[in-house]
Amino acid sequence: MKIVVLDGYTLNPGDISWKCMEKFGEVKVYDRTSYDLKGEELIIERVGDAEVVFTNKTPISKNALKKMPDLKFIGVLATGFNIVDVNAAKEAGIVVTNIPTYGTDAVSQMAIALLLEICHHVGEHSNSVMRGEWTNNQDWCYWNYPLIELAGKTMGIIGYGRIGQGTGRIAQALGMKVIAYDQYKNQSLESDTMKYVELDELMAKSDVITLHCPLLESTKGIINKNTISKMKDKVIKYL
Amino acid sequence: MKIVVLDGYTLNPGDISWKCMEKFGEVKVYDRTSYDLKGEELIIERVGDAEVVFTNKTPISKNALKKMPDLKFIGVLATGFNIVDVNAAKEAGIVVTNIPTYGTDAVSQMAIALLLEICHHVGEHSNSVMRGEWTNNQDWCYWNYPLIELAGKTMGIIGYGRIGQGTGRIAQALGMKVIAYDQYKNQSLESDTMKYVELDELMAKSDVITLHCPLLESTKGIINKNTISKMKDKVIKYL
Repeated sequence: MKIVVLDGYTLNPGDISWKCMEKFGEVKVYDRTSYDLKGEELIIERVGDAEVVFTNKTPISKNALKKMPDLKFIGVLATGFNIVDVNAAKEAGIVVTNIPTYGTDAVSQMAIALLLEICHHVGEHSNSVMRGEWTNNQDWCYWNYPLIELAGKTMGIIGYGRIGQGTGRIAQALGMKVIAYDQYKNQSLESDTMKYVELDELMAKSDVITLHCPLLESTKGIINKNTISKMKDKVIKYL
Repeated sequence: MKIVVLDGYTLNPGDISWKCMEKFGEVKVYDRTSYDLKGEELIIERVGDAEVVFTNKTPISKNALKKMPDLKFIGVLATGFNIVDVNAAKEAGIVVTNIPTYGTDAVSQMAIALLLEICHHVGEHSNSVMRGEWTNNQDWCYWNYPLIELAGKTMGIIGYGRIGQGTGRIAQALGMKVIAYDQYKNQSLESDTMKYVELDELMAKSDVITLHCPLLESTKGIINKNTISKMKDKVIKYL
């Protein structure tokens, strides 16, 4: 069985091994192929008569699938599977898998890290202090940006699945109120500090908005001129 | 009644008003006086025959108290009151107050912000991206530091009072285990993800250590050559 990895470097820049896959067949790993359809010829050529293909961000379109006659399995090495035409794959009887949970903790943590950067600018403050700007400051307290305290503020979370809930849990521990928009509501998650709301209400009441939804037709461009116009004036912006 | 504020700027650089204090007496606000005993003469001169003095970081020693004959009240405009010789004040019948809770949320948030800076270097990464280093990078994923995921790691918290508990709550929401050292233990706080331990065990088992204890004789120099030697090799260091 031929197995092709189209863009292995994104997942594995060298710190892990592909070796374990060799017991299933002949494995060919390409570090990179193409991240858009301009490289489609190369994508088709490299997949060739393989039965199994792994991709992270290399797209596999309906057109390409027609030219991959032996393909039986597409493994997406990421959570979002918008790069694969899943309807066409289904029609062709090709199984498509993704990895929905590998980044739950990491993405929630990153969302909070981005927010705390806006609140504290730790790196810039550290550089400023190392340049002696605190030492040479006549006051005991020194800061080069206003600090933002999150407790009591409201976080709006668009998409309240695993990652959204993880982010919401950290936000609540920071003393924030969470309001969430999701087409699937799990009422058991609601509490004094977490409520589901409609999108308009989320836009109007949030001090911070974070998106944790997949890219679907219904979510594409969800932050736009119209929704931004509904946001409150004091929404925390990157300063 | 004479009221003196010795170092008002630290608390109030101009965004709030001292006016409400004027109904209690004649108020004199100095932006700064001295942050150490080298300025003690000026400290004594400015307090003069005041009955009430407010200080944030300006020290009031036993010696100075002897020369403040009318003083009845010292209001520390901060949490830590190590700047006042409280024993000498007590002997002289002077009431000393501090503000133990104003910064609970803010300090917990800041501790986590410092940790997330080490994990993500958001500011530096943002600067790098703005310089075009992601755009000009051939891979879809781009980072200039290894990222550290906190879930599953252990945070050691020295001093598990209000602020320590607040920090511990956020750490647990990030998926971390918390081990805490405190001379006063509240067993009801223990759970699957939070345990009290002795100091040696905390040093040995923590991936991250955060201090939330007051400066007392028993806590002075608590991180020292001996305790550092007990830390595990893989403790997260500022990179």
